[in-house]
Amino acid sequence: MASSPRSVDEHRAVVAALLAPMPVEDVPVAQARGRVLAADVVAGVALPSFDNSAMDGYAVRAADLAGAPVELPVAADIPAGRTDVPPLQAGTVHRIMTGAALPAGADAVVPVEDTDGGLERVRIEKAPAPGAHVRRAGEDVRAGDVVLPAGTVLGAPQIGVAAAVGCATVPVRRRPRVLVLSTGSELVAPGTPLRPGQIYESNGPMLAAAVEDAGGSAELLRFVPDDVEEFLGRLRERLTDGPVDLLLTSGGVSAGAYEVVKDAFTGRGVEFVKVAMQPGGPQGAGRVAELEGTGVVTLPGNPVSSHVSFEVFVRPALRAALGHPHPDRPIVTATLGERWTSPPGRRQFRRGVLDAVTGTVRELGGPASHLLGALARAECLVVVPEDVTEVPEGTAVETWLLDG
Amino acid sequence: MASSPRSVDEHRAVVAALLAPMPVEDVPVAQARGRVLAADVVAGVALPSFDNSAMDGYAVRAADLAGAPVELPVAADIPAGRTDVPPLQAGTVHRIMTGAALPAGADAVVPVEDTDGGLERVRIEKAPAPGAHVRRAGEDVRAGDVVLPAGTVLGAPQIGVAAAVGCATVPVRRRPRVLVLSTGSELVAPGTPLRPGQIYESNGPMLAAAVEDAGGSAELLRFVPDDVEEFLGRLRERLTDGPVDLLLTSGGVSAGAYEVVKDAFTGRGVEFVKVAMQPGGPQGAGRVAELEGTGVVTLPGNPVSSHVSFEVFVRPALRAALGHPHPDRPIVTATLGERWTSPPGRRQFRRGVLDAVTGTVRELGGPASHLLGALARAECLVVVPEDVTEVPEGTAVETWLLDG
Repeated sequence: MASSPRSVDEHRAVVAALLAPMPVEDVPVAQARGRVLAADVVAGVALPSFDNSAMDGYAVRAADLAGAPVELPVAADIPAGRTDVPPLQAGTVHRIMTGAALPAGADAVVPVEDTDGGLERVRIEKAPAPGAHVRRAGEDVRAGDVVLPAGTVLGAPQIGVAAAVGCATVPVRRRPRVLVLSTGSELVAPGTPLRPGQIYESNGPMLAAAVEDAGGSAELLRFVPDDVEEFLGRLRERLTDGPVDLLLTSGGVSAGAYEVVKDAFTGRGVEFVKVAMQPGGPQGAGRVAELEGTGVVTLPGNPVSSHVSFEVFVRPALRAALGHPHPDRPIVTATLGERWTSPPGRRQFRRGVLDAVTGTVRELGGPASHLLGALARAECLVVVPEDVTEVPEGTAVETWLLDG
Repeated sequence: MASSPRSVDEHRAVVAALLAPMPVEDVPVAQARGRVLAADVVAGVALPSFDNSAMDGYAVRAADLAGAPVELPVAADIPAGRTDVPPLQAGTVHRIMTGAALPAGADAVVPVEDTDGGLERVRIEKAPAPGAHVRRAGEDVRAGDVVLPAGTVLGAPQIGVAAAVGCATVPVRRRPRVLVLSTGSELVAPGTPLRPGQIYESNGPMLAAAVEDAGGSAELLRFVPDDVEEFLGRLRERLTDGPVDLLLTSGGVSAGAYEVVKDAFTGRGVEFVKVAMQPGGPQGAGRVAELEGTGVVTLPGNPVSSHVSFEVFVRPALRAALGHPHPDRPIVTATLGERWTSPPGRRQFRRGVLDAVTGTVRELGGPASHLLGALARAECLVVVPEDVTEVPEGTAVETWLLDG
């Protein structure tokens, strides 16, 4: 344990350095939801890629209709998808459907509602303006345009536009594989009875869900008792099945005896430090040569400490490795609706609820690190800087939105 | 086609009625991320479930330390997880680790930092206040408390608290199964060359992603040409593999010839109507007896119409069926940063970008229904009511946040 605590920002940098940008892989566009583009998507075709009709109706030469109402012969029928569209001769019209290619020679479309709907000959009531109801090639997107820049998160509309410009696949960064492991002889699987002194294991599923929320791929290892050989053995065994990008542990890192994570990794590449924060002081990070150089982040075992540490250190590192342009949670300035005190020399992250109308934030459940019930209702983390000990009501406070 | 258009709200109700609340299923807590609780989660145990130590140190009787500094014998060692904790006799202390059960008779914990750390005997510098560094059973959650109400979306902290109170599984509503099918002879799979008159199929993957974003489970059927028998045959064949909760089509519903969806479903239980909105006027919804009573929603084929119709009609219906307490997108009031006109008698949904600092919204790309490039950059939909035709700069406008 270092005698002088490490700053939050320094430990953030140490954790971030464990995760290089993920390699790029091509994923079918229909399976790319939620992924982050690794390169610009450039339109292979214009949108529309050809002049086409915006309405069901008749493709015409506007000049032929100057004396409307007129009646003209229908020379051809152009459903959407017809690829052999004959040119339009003067004095005739083509029947045309929405999205169908405008025939050469036509310069306007008359909607069927403005006609008698004839199939052989059609009576047209009003002359259209040239260009009426015609979508011009390239008026939405030109071939060669960047339609989605690198770093875009692919939601439904983005998947739509990528497919529309012809992408069968999109280049995205591989999801970081994160192995999640809780330690502690006191841990029992939910669903079995507790004996006095035991608690239900909750950090593993919580952290695995947090990894997936951040865009990673989580694998939950069954928690292990406080035994160094069993702990290392479980990890070595798992790694023979294939590498992971990060090992995330919870528990076993504080100042006591029986600190299995600390005992297993001390002197093996993981630096255990006290970070100047609350909750979440005891932290560790590094690469373990004996585990094939795997990056390791060791979070404290208290559920709230574990959650806050994940938010502060791991989530931004995972998202940066995925190429997110904004790896951090959305940060807003809120007004504190009550008075707080805070210990000197530590950055506090307190769980809060935010009134969106007034912009006022209040604490939920108190600062203690074991209050999991309140954490489940928290909407935000409120940051109290290291050098602040008194936070009067009305103070403007940095607020991280947890569902952003 | 009904002669007088149907209102947006009426069609919303028609679509919503096609999807009953989904049945409840029990899902392992570690696999429940993003699901919606179908019933309250009640704590089976208190949190903490026993008095325990908040620090690594020594469990003491505060009265024994009144004359501190004192030196006392260490009678036992209590690691976390020890289930046979001996009572503390007067004049002795137990060494105790964070989270370990407080022995009967102890009323405070002295952190190891305030001692010489002795294993046989320990010197303690300061007398603690009674209760110091003790976490009391039930101070976070009491057994029987509702820790997560029905309707909660399960994120990482919620999964953590459910596991912590002993839930091996959680009751959630089954994800609605949605079959997505695009129609149109002009459609070509991305990755293959386009001939004139053809376009890349984009609605299928876009709508499938939108279904998944809404919490549904999407299955994408390969798009079919404009042929009624092939269309119905494809659907009958798929439904022999198992039922779906909704069939979602795009295209084939407007006023033209070759409208395969309309031709296939007219007179078979789907009502095709004109909805008083823009984009997205031509809509259909109903149950098809010949397809085992499957609920069907037919969206228009223009990508923007398809997307907006999904947002207005289908997404809220899917989320309501999942038990979301707030099925709609978050709605804010923004200030229009420019002047608009809007057609009478139709509710317009325009794509916009919102300046979060000033609360000002502007249109992106124009109201035309084929502008997919702009849709991919839109942050919100801005609603112009049916009876409004002039929207001056500075108007307060209803704004749906698309990433909320």
